[in-house]
Amino acid sequence: MTSAFEKLQKHLKQLPGLGFRSSERIALHLLVEKPARLPALVAALEEAARAVRRCTRCGNLAEADLCDICADEKRDRAVVCVVEHVPDLVAVERSGAYRGTYHVLHGKLSPIHGVGPGDLNFAALHARIEAGEVAELILALPNDVEGEATCHYLTEQLPRDR
Amino acid sequence: MTSAFEKLQKHLKQLPGLGFRSSERIALHLLVEKPARLPALVAALEEAARAVRRCTRCGNLAEADLCDICADEKRDRAVVCVVEHVPDLVAVERSGAYRGTYHVLHGKLSPIHGVGPGDLNFAALHARIEAGEVAELILALPNDVEGEATCHYLTEQLPRDR
Repeated sequence: MTSAFEKLQKHLKQLPGLGFRSSERIALHLLVEKPARLPALVAALEEAARAVRRCTRCGNLAEADLCDICADEKRDRAVVCVVEHVPDLVAVERSGAYRGTYHVLHGKLSPIHGVGPGDLNFAALHARIEAGEVAELILALPNDVEGEATCHYLTEQLPRDR
Repeated sequence: MTSAFEKLQKHLKQLPGLGFRSSERIALHLLVEKPARLPALVAALEEAARAVRRCTRCGNLAEADLCDICADEKRDRAVVCVVEHVPDLVAVERSGAYRGTYHVLHGKLSPIHGVGPGDLNFAALHARIEAGEVAELILALPNDVEGEATCHYLTEQLPRDR
């Protein structure tokens, strides 16, 4: 194998779910079997990197200031489901049963890994609460020590009259 | 999900071994969890597409005129293992037991799919045989109708005095 091939394989192997064999298979596919797919994949990666940003309200993926869910008038903005990561939001959305909105923290409090409140997307959530638009907060955070600490922190930060 | 995200996921899903969930997971990983990996992956893809070509002698992946195996003076050029695709060569190499060289056809004869002798890497193999450097040909082709037809065709094309 060539060095450029091995370098590509190494980068692919860093992606979640890909091991040595599967990254080799994908690299061979893109370089030998279907080389026409490579420029299209590069273009899609670059376009996504350029176009996709965080929703200023909830932290979800967005291509405008607001994500599709926050921009949807039919979603109930008074109900906010707090999740750790975007995939958690995707999982709840897939159920098709939830009509509220979300707030993505992009992590959980973890002093041992140096993750404090300032590293997470708390400020935008406080702004939503302060604006009085949130009636119900659903804490869909991981069932582990860090997830519970994050729930506890959020509860402590809520206005006292609720 | 945004349209640029869905487009990226669609391109990832075309890669071998990736389904809906795994491509979604990789797209989220590259856009949200580790965005710093995306430009490095794009660079590795572009570098590989630019640098990697076919070995002029055997059809393997190469970054120069000859691949690493053909350029290796210690490999026995009189023994040639004929394979369908580069991954087959990789599989034989992984055994560590083979010290000959290879010839990659990049396909097998398949009239039903419109693949004739002119579509495969036969010309370079004939040139190697004509040059008198091949003493033994190992046909490591698939054990199916097309593979057997390709073996038969190759045998028919060999010089009659061998």
